[in-house]
Amino acid sequence: MWGGRFSKSINDQFAYLNNSFRFDWRLYAADIRGSVAYAKELARSEIITDAERDALIDGLQRVKQEFDARTFESNPSTPLRVSDEDIHTAVERRLGELVGAVAGKLHTGRSRNDQVATDARLFTLDAISNLQSPISDLQRALVEKSEQHLDLIMPGYTHVQRAQPVLFAHWLMAYFWMLQRDAERLRDCAARVAVLPLGAGAIAGNALGIDREFLARELGFARVSENSIDAVSDRDFIAEFLFAAALIGIHLSRLGEDLVYYSSAEFGFITMDDAYATGSSLMPQKKNPDAMELARGKAGRLIGNLMTLLTVLKGLPSSYDKDLQEDKEPLFDTVDTLSALLPVVAGVIRTMRVNANALRAALDPAMLATDLADYLVRRGIPFRDAHRLAGQAVKRAETLGVALSELSLAEYKTIAPEFGADVQRVFDFAQSLAAREVSGGTGPHAVRAQIAQARTIIERVA
Amino acid sequence: MWGGRFSKSINDQFAYLNNSFRFDWRLYAADIRGSVAYAKELARSEIITDAERDALIDGLQRVKQEFDARTFESNPSTPLRVSDEDIHTAVERRLGELVGAVAGKLHTGRSRNDQVATDARLFTLDAISNLQSPISDLQRALVEKSEQHLDLIMPGYTHVQRAQPVLFAHWLMAYFWMLQRDAERLRDCAARVAVLPLGAGAIAGNALGIDREFLARELGFARVSENSIDAVSDRDFIAEFLFAAALIGIHLSRLGEDLVYYSSAEFGFITMDDAYATGSSLMPQKKNPDAMELARGKAGRLIGNLMTLLTVLKGLPSSYDKDLQEDKEPLFDTVDTLSALLPVVAGVIRTMRVNANALRAALDPAMLATDLADYLVRRGIPFRDAHRLAGQAVKRAETLGVALSELSLAEYKTIAPEFGADVQRVFDFAQSLAAREVSGGTGPHAVRAQIAQARTIIERVA
Amino acid sequence: MWGGRFSKSINDQFAYLNNSFRFDWRLYAADIRGSVAYAKELARSEIITDAERDALIDGLQRVKQEFDARTFESNPSTPLRVSDEDIHTAVERRLGELVGAVAGKLHTGRSRNDQVATDARLFTLDAISNLQSPISDLQRALVEKSEQHLDLIMPGYTHVQRAQPVLFAHWLMAYFWMLQRDAERLRDCAARVAVLPLGAGAIAGNALGIDREFLARELGFARVSENSIDAVSDRDFIAEFLFAAALIGIHLSRLGEDLVYYSSAEFGFITMDDAYATGSSLMPQKKNPDAMELARGKAGRLIGNLMTLLTVLKGLPSSYDKDLQEDKEPLFDTVDTLSALLPVVAGVIRTMRVNANALRAALDPAMLATDLADYLVRRGIPFRDAHRLAGQAVKRAETLGVALSELSLAEYKTIAPEFGADVQRVFDFAQSLAAREVSGGTGPHAVRAQIAQARTIIERVA
Amino acid sequence: MWGGRFSKSINDQFAYLNNSFRFDWRLYAADIRGSVAYAKELARSEIITDAERDALIDGLQRVKQEFDARTFESNPSTPLRVSDEDIHTAVERRLGELVGAVAGKLHTGRSRNDQVATDARLFTLDAISNLQSPISDLQRALVEKSEQHLDLIMPGYTHVQRAQPVLFAHWLMAYFWMLQRDAERLRDCAARVAVLPLGAGAIAGNALGIDREFLARELGFARVSENSIDAVSDRDFIAEFLFAAALIGIHLSRLGEDLVYYSSAEFGFITMDDAYATGSSLMPQKKNPDAMELARGKAGRLIGNLMTLLTVLKGLPSSYDKDLQEDKEPLFDTVDTLSALLPVVAGVIRTMRVNANALRAALDPAMLATDLADYLVRRGIPFRDAHRLAGQAVKRAETLGVALSELSLAEYKTIAPEFGADVQRVFDFAQSLAAREVSGGTGPHAVRAQIAQARTIIERVA
Repeated sequence: MWGGRFSKSINDQFAYLNNSFRFDWRLYAADIRGSVAYAKELARSEIITDAERDALIDGLQRVKQEFDARTFESNPSTPLRVSDEDIHTAVERRLGELVGAVAGKLHTGRSRNDQVATDARLFTLDAISNLQSPISDLQRALVEKSEQHLDLIMPGYTHVQRAQPVLFAHWLMAYFWMLQRDAERLRDCAARVAVLPLGAGAIAGNALGIDREFLARELGFARVSENSIDAVSDRDFIAEFLFAAALIGIHLSRLGEDLVYYSSAEFGFITMDDAYATGSSLMPQKKNPDAMELARGKAGRLIGNLMTLLTVLKGLPSSYDKDLQEDKEPLFDTVDTLSALLPVVAGVIRTMRVNANALRAALDPAMLATDLADYLVRRGIPFRDAHRLAGQAVKRAETLGVALSELSLAEYKTIAPEFGADVQRVFDFAQSLAAREVSGGTGPHAVRAQIAQARTIIERVA
Repeated sequence: MWGGRFSKSINDQFAYLNNSFRFDWRLYAADIRGSVAYAKELARSEIITDAERDALIDGLQRVKQEFDARTFESNPSTPLRVSDEDIHTAVERRLGELVGAVAGKLHTGRSRNDQVATDARLFTLDAISNLQSPISDLQRALVEKSEQHLDLIMPGYTHVQRAQPVLFAHWLMAYFWMLQRDAERLRDCAARVAVLPLGAGAIAGNALGIDREFLARELGFARVSENSIDAVSDRDFIAEFLFAAALIGIHLSRLGEDLVYYSSAEFGFITMDDAYATGSSLMPQKKNPDAMELARGKAGRLIGNLMTLLTVLKGLPSSYDKDLQEDKEPLFDTVDTLSALLPVVAGVIRTMRVNANALRAALDPAMLATDLADYLVRRGIPFRDAHRLAGQAVKRAETLGVALSELSLAEYKTIAPEFGADVQRVFDFAQSLAAREVSGGTGPHAVRAQIAQARTIIERVA
Repeated sequence: MWGGRFSKSINDQFAYLNNSFRFDWRLYAADIRGSVAYAKELARSEIITDAERDALIDGLQRVKQEFDARTFESNPSTPLRVSDEDIHTAVERRLGELVGAVAGKLHTGRSRNDQVATDARLFTLDAISNLQSPISDLQRALVEKSEQHLDLIMPGYTHVQRAQPVLFAHWLMAYFWMLQRDAERLRDCAARVAVLPLGAGAIAGNALGIDREFLARELGFARVSENSIDAVSDRDFIAEFLFAAALIGIHLSRLGEDLVYYSSAEFGFITMDDAYATGSSLMPQKKNPDAMELARGKAGRLIGNLMTLLTVLKGLPSSYDKDLQEDKEPLFDTVDTLSALLPVVAGVIRTMRVNANALRAALDPAMLATDLADYLVRRGIPFRDAHRLAGQAVKRAETLGVALSELSLAEYKTIAPEFGADVQRVFDFAQSLAAREVSGGTGPHAVRAQIAQARTIIERVA
Repeated sequence: MWGGRFSKSINDQFAYLNNSFRFDWRLYAADIRGSVAYAKELARSEIITDAERDALIDGLQRVKQEFDARTFESNPSTPLRVSDEDIHTAVERRLGELVGAVAGKLHTGRSRNDQVATDARLFTLDAISNLQSPISDLQRALVEKSEQHLDLIMPGYTHVQRAQPVLFAHWLMAYFWMLQRDAERLRDCAARVAVLPLGAGAIAGNALGIDREFLARELGFARVSENSIDAVSDRDFIAEFLFAAALIGIHLSRLGEDLVYYSSAEFGFITMDDAYATGSSLMPQKKNPDAMELARGKAGRLIGNLMTLLTVLKGLPSSYDKDLQEDKEPLFDTVDTLSALLPVVAGVIRTMRVNANALRAALDPAMLATDLADYLVRRGIPFRDAHRLAGQAVKRAETLGVALSELSLAEYKTIAPEFGADVQRVFDFAQSLAAREVSGGTGPHAVRAQIAQARTIIERVA
């Protein structure tokens, strides 16, 4: 494609390092879509005839069919398994084989620099669009599971210590909102992806007077890039996508952490469905929550992909440098990772069995110590003092080896005369929840409202 | 603050590790702002009297004055330099010293979990707001410098090889658009920061029936969080800010890379002002572009801060865990780094001398080889063939040791009979630029339009 | 120090960004030690007289005393809080104030480039040396705790599912070996740190014919660097140290994860001592394992510091660039983090209460399913089949709602006729352990041997 | 392999996520080597007969031949492209097809946990061993190129500003020593990789009384692991390898940065051979240093792989968790990346043309300002003053628009009366170098000694 000024062919090992076709073939649909639009504009600008345009478009569609059918062959006549330098070269080479010399006109005024940037943006827009459904479906699974256990109370933890009673649905819905932020972040990202670089040429812009606005409309971009130098070297949109994906990974890793422990013998809150668990090659009794461990572990990979690209970009000179070729594999891997992971997590949520008895059994009256302090506050004691006195009650109960609710009134009165016989009424988990109907709180009505709001959101998406 | 149930005091080394006051004192203004709003709401909800509210607010303002004046003292009676556990404890302790027992009522229904999340969000909103001006000022510096050199042509590079002529202003403006995306990313981030966690309590929500919408309005939040468990453990907003900051860092690192080389003896395009350069302790002749090297290097730190937080968050159980305390130092360091760096980069741009002669001297006729190919395209040769023929001309000129523009017509005709005497007209840099008036291109009118658009943007901000 | 060729003073904001004294003052002891050695060599090489050398050394020691006593003052006459550019400038400036013009001779043939590299290596060598004791002490705490519970059996987990019985001591000792690798990694790293850069000058080497071998001996380096360009820009030794530290952080994060869960109500294996736990500002009953959560979280910071430096170094041109100034803060922070964290973790281990009853109660006969399969193997069934049959027994017991050990012989015989009455003998945890006396296994003798080996190692260090 | 206790088959999407065969097939040689050794030991321990051992070993070798010949087929009868769960399952399944029921005995007392750890260590040991030759070959290329230009002087840069004259060979040899540290780091790493986990079982150790020392000898490990829990979950060795590889990547990125700029038109020091350069799809004259840009960019990927694994490991509970499956792809990718990159860089070095005239033309008398200061030092002026005076000379020359060497004696005397007519003798580059014969310096003899030392090192390796 570019050998005119060269007097020697490329070294084989270097060719292998340099060639990107073995991974960037995945851009084929985007590449061909971009070329079809470009052919149209070349005809509109009278650089090529309408007949040439039609020949090009027809040929491009045949190339696409070969890719779709996995019959596209890289040139088998060289020692390298993959001989085409990249997807652009491969498509142009094959197009030439199919339609002849006119193929050589398609690249007029275009550079691989603006072409690959366009391809990568089309691919990323598709990827974001394709992730909406599995994210939304996981959200739906969370909502549905929450709705199945609307009144089930469980210990809420902080520091992995029992803190206060919360609704199981409230705990599960926490993940809904993390994913909702993820979806919004992807939407914001998409707006920055949808900026057309095509027409930027190698660096200086196109000299054919083409209509970039037409190209943008044709390819579904919201607007055209403002500066051709920036356009060919901007990979912010991939970095932003990789970041948004890494945060999704972190959210799934947190859900994974919760579920791995909740399905342990010690917690026993959750039983994984056999379809989403594995066994051990050595220990016959084992049933392992691999799916959620992988959800936890994949966060590492997603963060690593982000780190890869940020490091590649750091300190790069302006405009296009070959280092930018390193943007694609982390992009592809992140898309593949989330695409494989999200539906599995949704499956885990949908099929897991919630062990209501275990959740109830884990409710310990000491989790109502805050309510006990609130009791004193209602009797006029400043909260900080009430907190201290409730703490003394906890300590006294521990010393006596009884539950906080079993401490005698006499004991309570020793700690604070404000305690009365009605202190017993504090030790009611449902009542504790009912007191927390503040917006966003764990009160049953608040949680129902929260779920209703979530339903509205996912139905809007669907 | 929480010792009621404990029978032993805390180990000194652990206290040092655990205490965050030595860095989170920086949240004092946010913390006090949050407490003032909370006191108002406690009175509105009749948890405290109006007189108590006034006493609390008055006391809080006195504490703030002590911080502002740097006279706030951590308790000096302990061997630890900093004895308060954290900013919240410090403020509450000092408030108690100033206003007495009523201070113990301020924390009613509130936990440090929702308090610190609120503080961190207020701090981040301020940080984003405070970064707008230096970002915008750097953009302004880029626009002004571009306007000073509207018609200056320089080599545009790809792969650090001379590629095509571009306007100096076009090169510089590329950075304007990177920063514009950064500003937009921060704006999108701010919308996700402006969600109020206050009222989430430790995890379960507030039991006092407080009005979170009032708190949100009072504190300038756009809305309230939907789930209390998520609210106390969500640090996505910091991660997103750190990411946006890391990308700013990457953009500055790329500008740094360009300017470090452009101010080398070999390029000689730029002369740093003495006010923004340093010398050598050993070599008397040295004048080093330290400012832009630091701009390049600081990207590492900003990326490292992002990685710190992402790794902290990965695999954490839901709700609050102490690990989250590790969110603050990267946040503070990133804010400090950008606050110190951005104005210096603006200063460098404003004061640097552009060596027009050096830029012009670097224009090599071979950079017009694309125009030479375009010449053949206009004579009906498909671009791919025209590219090959122009490449042969380049090679021939190299072999003969002459500039591409000095190759004889006879030589040109040997390569392709389509070449005519008018081929000489190709070798005109200004004309090459004039052909690239496509939107976003380097043509003089296109660049003027680009600068005008940029002017509109920064004037809208100001 | 370098202003001769400059006609303008440095911009204040740039000075703040550029100056490193506010953090690199921590190198003062190393810097002065290096200068003392250099003064000696200048005299040996007859660049200065013996009297000048004595004056310099005397002055340097006085400067060090000012630093030690925290009475060293940065020049207070400028608006910047810290006016000295860096530790080298500060020491030289103060030395001049104390000893006069001879101070100007100390820098002869030396550059800050080789000086700071020498300082950083001295600092890192000290840091590695200083970390040996807290690492070794934590190892000692692990050994001692193991020795206190030599025969205590607990569930061994994989995938956080009960897998096979192991000794508590065996579980705890796993961390000993991680730390042992860490200690070895630091030792290997130290060998690469102990290479003297002094004498490399700015880049080209020293022109005074100084004896670098003398300097190496004087400063405790094992050898001198081989190439002056490499010497001034090599920061591999810091990267390697930061990596070794990050792995220590990861090991502590894993121990943190185990202990956070083991001290939950659900596991209940461990009770944190009150001296190493904290309470809640809201919930009076809470006792939180903050120390080990911080141990888990600090890994993020240590990894972030490593990423900072790796990213700074990536793509840097050869020899000294100002970007390298970004090496110090991650180095200092990592040293401080581990220095604060390691003793606290040792304290946690030493003071935590092991709840033997809870550990025993968690032993479930199903954890002996592997032994059940082994039973069949001993009766001639290939392991893969035996595993399947034991799995069926587990499933049958689950279906019947009985423990694996409670399944009747008739049931067992239905699964496999090879089962005999002696199958009951399988369900003996101590016997299961006794079968695993293979080296490195959890058999009581193997674990005693393991502990004895560990004792030998830590006593060799002490 | 483990389905006995399960009542439902695995979900397809989960199977795809869970199965690792599509990448861990690369461990086949290691896996089979480990199994052959294990079969031998099973026979030695009389768990199986000698005939069974021979059948197993024979079968394993046939499986290996199928892999070697790429005829090994994953079960094609399922909708998943790859149906075997992992390499261990695949080998055992195929072995069963080839040798029948005896295959079910191979796994006796072994778990995939100790098996995969053994495989990964064997693979990593091979990888380290295989990297020695390309590292050493690149070092050789650097030495050879240095030897070809022994007396060629070039500007030495700091901050990308001309600093002092150095030998071209000295600059190039700087990279030799970076790689030498890399080789040493890999060697230290290998010692920690060569610790046998086999026999650790799933977590508790092997119950068959096998001889782990025999297995270690048989498989080439230096010693056996001390603790079975640690053994199955230790991935430090991969992290350490990935770190060492990332540093290699950083060194190559720095060499890349140097060569990308040195082959620019502005520096012109180096001309890339056509076999290691590429052209542009648009600009016919372009010749791009892609190989070295990729060398620079690949560092990002290598750092990202390290980040991936560190994040995966952070906060993991002790012993085996499925997250650890995420260790393999970064390991494989890092090995592949370095294997592809190192020979190309060696090829670039060997074939690049050094433009001696351009190097000489870049020597500027101002680079001898340090020598000018030294001149004054020799006349009794303290270095700090001499530095200032030389700086004034530089400034004066700049003001007059003459080279530093062209400043008149009268001008020099105005700056400092100590200047004499012999000041002209300072401006001799060769003499400046000759003054720097200190060990590690750029003096011609010092550089020859450095190269000789390097020769000794690489010949010791060969």
